[in-house]
Amino acid sequence: MGEVGSETGGTPARERHSRRGGGAAERRQRRSGGGRTQLKYISRNIPLYEVLSEEGLAIIERNADTVLEEIGIEFREDPEALAMWREAGADVRGERVHFPKGLCRALLKTAPKIFTQHARNPERNVVIGGNSTVFAPVYGPPFIRNLDEGRRYATIEDFRNFVKLAYVLPTLHHSGGTVCEPVDVPVHKRHLDMVYSHIRYSDKPFMGSVTAPERAEDSVAMAKLVFGDEFVDQNCVLINLINANSPLVFDATMLGALKVYARNNQATVVSPFILAGAMSPVTVVGTLTTILAEALAGCAFSQLCRPGAPVVFGTFSSSISMQSGAPTFGTPEPAHVLYGAAQLARRIGIPFRSGGSLCASKVPDAQAAHESTQTLIPTLYAGVNFVLHAAGWLEGGLVSSYEKLIIDADQLGMMQRFAEGVDFSENGQALDAIREVGPGSHFLGCGHTQANFESAFYRSTIADNNSYEQWLAEGQQDAAQRANAIYKQMLREYAAPDLDPGIDEALSDFMARRKAVLPDSLT
Amino acid sequence: MGEVGSETGGTPARERHSRRGGGAAERRQRRSGGGRTQLKYISRNIPLYEVLSEEGLAIIERNADTVLEEIGIEFREDPEALAMWREAGADVRGERVHFPKGLCRALLKTAPKIFTQHARNPERNVVIGGNSTVFAPVYGPPFIRNLDEGRRYATIEDFRNFVKLAYVLPTLHHSGGTVCEPVDVPVHKRHLDMVYSHIRYSDKPFMGSVTAPERAEDSVAMAKLVFGDEFVDQNCVLINLINANSPLVFDATMLGALKVYARNNQATVVSPFILAGAMSPVTVVGTLTTILAEALAGCAFSQLCRPGAPVVFGTFSSSISMQSGAPTFGTPEPAHVLYGAAQLARRIGIPFRSGGSLCASKVPDAQAAHESTQTLIPTLYAGVNFVLHAAGWLEGGLVSSYEKLIIDADQLGMMQRFAEGVDFSENGQALDAIREVGPGSHFLGCGHTQANFESAFYRSTIADNNSYEQWLAEGQQDAAQRANAIYKQMLREYAAPDLDPGIDEALSDFMARRKAVLPDSLT
Repeated sequence: MGEVGSETGGTPARERHSRRGGGAAERRQRRSGGGRTQLKYISRNIPLYEVLSEEGLAIIERNADTVLEEIGIEFREDPEALAMWREAGADVRGERVHFPKGLCRALLKTAPKIFTQHARNPERNVVIGGNSTVFAPVYGPPFIRNLDEGRRYATIEDFRNFVKLAYVLPTLHHSGGTVCEPVDVPVHKRHLDMVYSHIRYSDKPFMGSVTAPERAEDSVAMAKLVFGDEFVDQNCVLINLINANSPLVFDATMLGALKVYARNNQATVVSPFILAGAMSPVTVVGTLTTILAEALAGCAFSQLCRPGAPVVFGTFSSSISMQSGAPTFGTPEPAHVLYGAAQLARRIGIPFRSGGSLCASKVPDAQAAHESTQTLIPTLYAGVNFVLHAAGWLEGGLVSSYEKLIIDADQLGMMQRFAEGVDFSENGQALDAIREVGPGSHFLGCGHTQANFESAFYRSTIADNNSYEQWLAEGQQDAAQRANAIYKQMLREYAAPDLDPGIDEALSDFMARRKAVLPDSLT
Repeated sequence: MGEVGSETGGTPARERHSRRGGGAAERRQRRSGGGRTQLKYISRNIPLYEVLSEEGLAIIERNADTVLEEIGIEFREDPEALAMWREAGADVRGERVHFPKGLCRALLKTAPKIFTQHARNPERNVVIGGNSTVFAPVYGPPFIRNLDEGRRYATIEDFRNFVKLAYVLPTLHHSGGTVCEPVDVPVHKRHLDMVYSHIRYSDKPFMGSVTAPERAEDSVAMAKLVFGDEFVDQNCVLINLINANSPLVFDATMLGALKVYARNNQATVVSPFILAGAMSPVTVVGTLTTILAEALAGCAFSQLCRPGAPVVFGTFSSSISMQSGAPTFGTPEPAHVLYGAAQLARRIGIPFRSGGSLCASKVPDAQAAHESTQTLIPTLYAGVNFVLHAAGWLEGGLVSSYEKLIIDADQLGMMQRFAEGVDFSENGQALDAIREVGPGSHFLGCGHTQANFESAFYRSTIADNNSYEQWLAEGQQDAAQRANAIYKQMLREYAAPDLDPGIDEALSDFMARRKAVLPDSLT
């Protein structure tokens, strides 16, 4: 927490209580997330990469102001939202809101530049904003894929498995939200099981439901059972994905969820969802213009709900194949958009969400890896603060892949190490080692190497660097096959973090009461 | 050529002659490289990414000066080189050369900041240095791999195939050198067949042999048959890889080849070959220190051979597994080294070579793709000028992969598009398109999209973005399987660029004369 701890309060009382129950061994287990040393969210120690010039950014900002004022943004089927905008000084005609120049930016002055999302284990708290980067798993797919079963609809067991794996994987700082859509649970009830799974099977921070305002209310209610009412009102314990219905529309469902979360002081990630060429122009600058206009309007609306509520400038942006209309990922233009949007968000002064390990590939092959890395490296270099879909995303977001979760998580570790920057200490300079070894010898045995080799280089969990002969002897496995073995072992060895039995019981009671009144349909 | 044309002379006379023979159709064929529109080398229109601070760079430069002065560099089994260094003012003790502070940098003032390497087709000339980036294929592997045959020793037919593919692939600006080692040709003769293949089966620029001084002489002699004696003496037509024997040693073989090329005014790429932990300390800064010391000494030596000879600060740098000693690729520390070395080279003011699509994986799978992209993106962002191994490298450089050549070349196209930067023209801003479409509609059918869709987004040649159902119907292929079909089609459709029959005959005569006096052994 460090620099922002004082802004966001201390440890929640219930969490402190729940920790009293465990012994030292249990605490170590919790700290290590199933035996592995968990990594704290990234605090960048490397420069930002910025693609757009000051002049270019000013053009986009001017054009977005024109869009906001002349064209406007629609807030659909939500008379309350329209009334709030009218009250704030906007020009509302029907459902179309026209924003006087500067209104959105003025409203955003109350939004925090940086905030802490609290986890039930305070060691897993994440800071969102500034120079921090937080990795969360894939969000939303109705299908899963693994090497054994291929592709099939996801179940609540898959959901729990992905939560468990995200808990164990040290490079995921966050438990995420809809890690897959559990289609075997009634659609009106599954948000309860999803939120409960994040609480029960992980101790990392997580996301609330946004698919209906009352599901957002349920998410907040369950968070209060874990953290306490007062703590939730004063601190962020949920972060929630609010997609715009691009171009230039917010719909009632998303606005309803946004209002619930913002009024409860919980974070919203207002994300234009853009496949350029469909939801925005086919150009980078045109796309950035619509993104900025939508994000400004949506983020500003959160401050009308509750000034000071944490809000994140989000964007999910990729391109489409102009031949087939299919979404494409990892291509150069979305990378330009990502870099540009990050710069625009920094100029507003609120946290930024984008990127991830996005791909269109159906399987975790070279295509999947290329597309993912071509998104992930810009994600890190651009200084994205909150990274949804950081691991496990396959097939344009239709599939949560067990093997790709493992493969991507290894790449996240590399990004985290890269972000640590370069060590210029005397040990890092190693001049004495160069003196000791001299010309024509080697450094393998020298004292400096012996003293540093354990931590010298990032150790991949997936890469096979063995000899060709050894690789042959071990069955000529590719990366996906190795990942298959790793995720199964992780699930076998998984041990849940402890949870206060009183909290667990309260959550179960709440869910039972809610399920009793909600309909049972599966679609 | 543009800004540097005047520095390096015009079109070679023989090339002009050879072009007279062809008709318009042939010229188009030559321009298009087998029917595909060839891309000019990259002229960056994006910022550089720089990881090290001014202060950090100064520390490394100070330490490298200490290494050069106190520890020194060995120039082994080459009394002439030692005499040249003594003459230049160095302190030579045995084979160890100690460099007074500033000597190497002073010598490098005669080296060009930027130069043109001429191809026999002037449209394929490349500019090396400044804001340009040139992609060349994999260099050196004794094995090839394809999906049909697996891994086996390379032959001269494989060599020709890789030259043909690099000729056809629009994103390879260069034909490279030892695209694989043709082990079925006697070791003392194969350099002739390799150089001839580059001339006969491509019209892109290429590399000379460095495995013995007399093979370098043969390479220059063959280049003179193509370009003419006077043109070669005044212009760069060969670029040649001179590896240091790190740490801190240059051996007689490499020094011999360097002297031949530099004295003939041909370019040398002086490359510390570093697996950090073995040939350098296990730290980034320690590694950069040895790289800088070796590159300064080796590059400066080229100017002792012929002031003004083009020379490139090269580095091949990766890490090793501290468990097994095996080389590892695509990890964070080599990326730090790459960025740092690029900054150090810019401060000297000579072109820089590094990077590529490096990987340790045995097959073109997700591991190969991740490792390659984790090297290739830093290669572009760091501003590397000459990129060896840009496509086709597999298994730590032991294998030239047909499928990976195709997959990597697609990634190179993405890098080239990314480097073009962002279009801020009125068309790029697309404000009228946003006005026309308005909220809640889509951009697929609007006039702006129709006018721009052909060139709007990079089109991958490898990625499958089709629906899951279509992918199933087409046989559930992964990226490597698609690449297999593509390379075979390219070879089937390959048509050689025309070559003046007189030149061809002269080359054949030369090779026959040389082969008659060279031994026949295969090892």
